[in-house]
Amino acid sequence: MHILVTNDDGVRSPGLLCLKQALEKVAKVTVFAPERNWSAAGHNRTMHKPLRVDEVSLADGSMAYASNGTPSDCVALALLGLVPERVDMVFSGINMGANLGQDITYSGTVAGAMEAAIYGLPAISISLCSFDPAADFRAAGRIAAALAQTVFAEGLPKGVFLNVNVPALPLAALQGVQLTRLGRRVYKDVLLRREDPRGRPYYWIGGDAPGGELEPGTDVWAVEEGYISVTPIHMDMTAYHVLEQQARWAALLTKAVLACQEEAC
Amino acid sequence: MHILVTNDDGVRSPGLLCLKQALEKVAKVTVFAPERNWSAAGHNRTMHKPLRVDEVSLADGSMAYASNGTPSDCVALALLGLVPERVDMVFSGINMGANLGQDITYSGTVAGAMEAAIYGLPAISISLCSFDPAADFRAAGRIAAALAQTVFAEGLPKGVFLNVNVPALPLAALQGVQLTRLGRRVYKDVLLRREDPRGRPYYWIGGDAPGGELEPGTDVWAVEEGYISVTPIHMDMTAYHVLEQQARWAALLTKAVLACQEEAC
Repeated sequence: MHILVTNDDGVRSPGLLCLKQALEKVAKVTVFAPERNWSAAGHNRTMHKPLRVDEVSLADGSMAYASNGTPSDCVALALLGLVPERVDMVFSGINMGANLGQDITYSGTVAGAMEAAIYGLPAISISLCSFDPAADFRAAGRIAAALAQTVFAEGLPKGVFLNVNVPALPLAALQGVQLTRLGRRVYKDVLLRREDPRGRPYYWIGGDAPGGELEPGTDVWAVEEGYISVTPIHMDMTAYHVLEQQARWAALLTKAVLACQEEAC
Repeated sequence: MHILVTNDDGVRSPGLLCLKQALEKVAKVTVFAPERNWSAAGHNRTMHKPLRVDEVSLADGSMAYASNGTPSDCVALALLGLVPERVDMVFSGINMGANLGQDITYSGTVAGAMEAAIYGLPAISISLCSFDPAADFRAAGRIAAALAQTVFAEGLPKGVFLNVNVPALPLAALQGVQLTRLGRRVYKDVLLRREDPRGRPYYWIGGDAPGGELEPGTDVWAVEEGYISVTPIHMDMTAYHVLEQQARWAALLTKAVLACQEEAC
């Protein structure tokens, strides 16, 4: 089996190296990652500039591909042919910092897995719930290898990938694993206004780290309780509960559009 | 009522101007848009550089805010206080080119509406199904104003926004409106390798425009049939059909994690 590893913290991230080394115990691994940090880059596609790809050495002396593109660009470049061997799974991470609830629509880490899912490959994104630069990724690495083996053995339903968050605890202290749904993050963003040396204003979106609603069964709750959270994700963001009120909304919208068409006649 | 208008084609886009002028017939409008094109930018947040905001003039002489950030940055900046008046709705577009199926996870246009939904505001993203630089946005503009009035009158369920795609047809030729689910795009990406004047390779992800599966009830199908497609979207990407197999997956994952913990002892 052959696993493509990417991330959004960049090719020099210790979380990437740890993931690569852990997965090498269960599969052949190729690393194809952004040359710089793309945190909160979202799921995107570089369309306005050419993409460069370089071969670089990781800290353990092994070769990796590094690109000026985003995590999703890296996955697309690899799967469209830059990595000659067939890829069986894409693994993205280990991210420094949790990716919970609505975070996943911002997350470059998760975007790497999304891109793989669009290409029809099994994929897993994994994040360590810590922003400590000295954080220990090893427990999360072992979990990653165990999950890869499980997914190789069992497969994943079509179009579904797994988003995994691991509390920053020693392996033995983890409470186990919970299959979760996405919870609700509560963001605490504030606007910070500063002035450059020429007196012109500029802004940062800052504020405290996001909190979340601790509803049992959610990813936000699971990691707070010390569980590894595994959330099955798909790309279908349709709000089906609104479609169930189809008749009412269809009538309202039809009325609005007809009025608009008649007025134009 | 006060509508914040953004887009991902940039503050100079004719689609933005058309949307602003159409919505002014039903509400007060403030424009806050990226200074450049961010197509396929995804849902993201600029964290690595300061954000600048300038006041610029649109082609009709009116004032707009322009930022070096992404569409979601623009919405966040506005809602965090840079636009002093309370905002009642966010409208993103009119995008040049459809945003259907999995496109919405890439789309900067849709990301503007996502960001608004995270802030708890009603939001609509709207795209014209044409890449013709001379495309006529007026029919889509009138539809936008009609939809804004409907949403003001009826509200939207919490956390849900509307993603709208309008076929590039005269208003009278539109077949009406369909409330749809997201369909499946079929991408036709290919890797293009070129060499710069110094012989170093660079890459574009190119290929034909994406197609899609024409399954009735989907957005892809609706616009192909000449209908305005309105898809209710929420941020919860949990694959609930996998959670229904909870027992089996929880057992598999627990087994894998336990093995991993025991091995480490």
